Amino acid sequence: MNVKDIRFAERFDGVTGSAIREIFKLLAKPGMISFAGGNPSEAALPDEDMAQIAAEVLKKDGKRILQYGATEGYPPFLEALRGYAGPHFGIDMSANGVLPTTGSTQGMQLLLSALINPGDTILVEDPTFLGNMQSMRLFRAKLVPVNSDGEGMDTDDLERKIRAYHPRMIYTIPTFQNPTGCTLGLERRKRIAALAEEYGVVVAEDDPYHDLRYAGQELPTIKSFDKAGWVVFLGSFSKVISPGMRVGFLAAEPGLLRKCVIAKQASDLHTALLTQAMCAEYITRGLLDPHIQSILGGYAEQMNTMLDELSRMKTVRSYTKPEGGLFIFASLDEGLNATQLLPRAVEKNVAYVPGTHFYPDGGHENTFRLNFSKASPEEIRRGMRLLDETFAQA
Amino acid sequence: MNVKDIRFAERFDGVTGSAIREIFKLLAKPGMISFAGGNPSEAALPDEDMAQIAAEVLKKDGKRILQYGATEGYPPFLEALRGYAGPHFGIDMSANGVLPTTGSTQGMQLLLSALINPGDTILVEDPTFLGNMQSMRLFRAKLVPVNSDGEGMDTDDLERKIRAYHPRMIYTIPTFQNPTGCTLGLERRKRIAALAEEYGVVVAEDDPYHDLRYAGQELPTIKSFDKAGWVVFLGSFSKVISPGMRVGFLAAEPGLLRKCVIAKQASDLHTALLTQAMCAEYITRGLLDPHIQSILGGYAEQMNTMLDELSRMKTVRSYTKPEGGLFIFASLDEGLNATQLLPRAVEKNVAYVPGTHFYPDGGHENTFRLNFSKASPEEIRRGMRLLDETFAQA
Repeated sequence: MNVKDIRFAERFDGVTGSAIREIFKLLAKPGMISFAGGNPSEAALPDEDMAQIAAEVLKKDGKRILQYGATEGYPPFLEALRGYAGPHFGIDMSANGVLPTTGSTQGMQLLLSALINPGDTILVEDPTFLGNMQSMRLFRAKLVPVNSDGEGMDTDDLERKIRAYHPRMIYTIPTFQNPTGCTLGLERRKRIAALAEEYGVVVAEDDPYHDLRYAGQELPTIKSFDKAGWVVFLGSFSKVISPGMRVGFLAAEPGLLRKCVIAKQASDLHTALLTQAMCAEYITRGLLDPHIQSILGGYAEQMNTMLDELSRMKTVRSYTKPEGGLFIFASLDEGLNATQLLPRAVEKNVAYVPGTHFYPDGGHENTFRLNFSKASPEEIRRGMRLLDETFAQA
Repeated sequence: MNVKDIRFAERFDGVTGSAIREIFKLLAKPGMISFAGGNPSEAALPDEDMAQIAAEVLKKDGKRILQYGATEGYPPFLEALRGYAGPHFGIDMSANGVLPTTGSTQGMQLLLSALINPGDTILVEDPTFLGNMQSMRLFRAKLVPVNSDGEGMDTDDLERKIRAYHPRMIYTIPTFQNPTGCTLGLERRKRIAALAEEYGVVVAEDDPYHDLRYAGQELPTIKSFDKAGWVVFLGSFSKVISPGMRVGFLAAEPGLLRKCVIAKQASDLHTALLTQAMCAEYITRGLLDPHIQSILGGYAEQMNTMLDELSRMKTVRSYTKPEGGLFIFASLDEGLNATQLLPRAVEKNVAYVPGTHFYPDGGHENTFRLNFSKASPEEIRRGMRLLDETFAQA
């Protein structure tokens, strides 16, 4: 029998791979100014510290780090994580456990595995992060968008849809959302925690950009308002230490965490101990907070440069004005199509992600997402002008 | 609503976590002689080389290693892998692609994700590796055991069961199998490749122990007989470099590999670049083959010590006589129950894994799996005598 006739599992029906990751491949072209990714800036990657730390942890505890470890995590990392993440994110560590994950991508997968049967509904922001939409679709979940604005999910619409759809999960990126950069308001955070308990729905609070704030006041996490155990916090070190190390974590009440541990046994047994050990050491040496402080200024300048350019672009009808994170979301005049315009932009050596990919139901063809963390302010000025030219010629 | 009333996904019905990993937790007791794990010996973990290599790769390519990478793999590792694994395992690299995985545990998960709908049948050895049985059960597969003997799967029974059950996958650990230590014969390897093509069934060839041969002649992989693309090779560096680094790979024809890449996007985006880079460097420096050669002598002595002790044990009715790997599988007299005897053994400071966990349909309560790679020859002598005492008192 010819292998071309192989029958793949039904979960792949309609799933074709992440549009963003395909766009990434175009970006190898020399001279490309990329607003497409979600990559930290090179300056934000602590390669010198990590070269030293990697060697030291392997010298100190190499036989344990190279051996099999527990699915539940490398003990020194667990200790560092509890001490750091508890107070930092307002997580009650007496009521919640933590599980190291291979990036928060895996945290999401474990949670989907624990909760979602085919056909179950997940309520999501509109638009939302396409990578996790793909994960949800591979679990054959039904994605229902909740009306969202500059302050995140409209919680009245959320409650209506909880009543209408009986969802198993509410997925939110409350702080400097991907793709919009918008932040969920304080009252809405409290209300989401209350609705989760009232209706018995798990909230997946995905908060990787939490610490990348360049203006305004820090807001407490939804998890900090969670008294009943329905909120799961997905944390990540990708945006504040390194995405290539693939270290994130999940904080949840013990019963749900246990299912995630079992799912992780079948997923990758445990997260690489070396990268767990390196994150532990980075935290316990007190390097994390100063490192974050050291990168905020550069990111703020990049964001403000991009916002300044956007304000001059005649082709851009509207755009979000984030207080942090990595992304700005913008709209062209109705009738313009960001997907069709992308090849012309790439020809001019500038790239973005068409916004339609972030909408659970598609459409919104005139929108696009811009990332400002990878390009320098000069590249941002140049790239945005190239974009303006591209759009003006459409 | 109380979070205790949370409804978990149906895939967890009847799945309670890996029995082995729960047993592992007992082993922290000081003085315990463990025959329970599958851990490489401490001597087999190249911690000094790796401390140096980690620092060097981070100095040389740190900004790339700490940044997001492609799901498809870190380019220097892909290159090293193609150059090494192609000739080493007889994989035709013009017809197959490779994908780095976060341990071969993840390779299995990606393959299950690509192929298995709930209710699909997977044919497995009897007994087989319990970790991957758990993964299969989380995909709600139906596991059907194929009669197996000292030369692995009986291929006549395999063909009968292919006709009867129309499986989507055949799962085999052909070399120094877990838990039996037995090796699939040459003619059976050829026949499995032929049956896969004839009936259009994917073969998952899980071969992590391939290089740990202490006697006899190396056999070609099933994949080396695969002309049609139905065989997927799951490779691992866990047993020859380090399990804690979580680096494995999957070799498959391009169409199937593509589905695994998409599944991996949702699983952990990519394997940690640092551990990929370290494996790449270890291979390209020519350290891997000499390292494997350096560990074989110790493992052979451990295995032979255990076999020698087994030959003296009056309570043991039969046991396998492997030519390599990490495990020996043994049977007590009928009527004795290895699960019930385990707490008594642990009380005497010696542990094993009851064999029943490795049988898809359970039963075989008089069997148990012994690992010989973690304990020293002296510990093996002492531990086996403690086991003999335990069993004799039953």
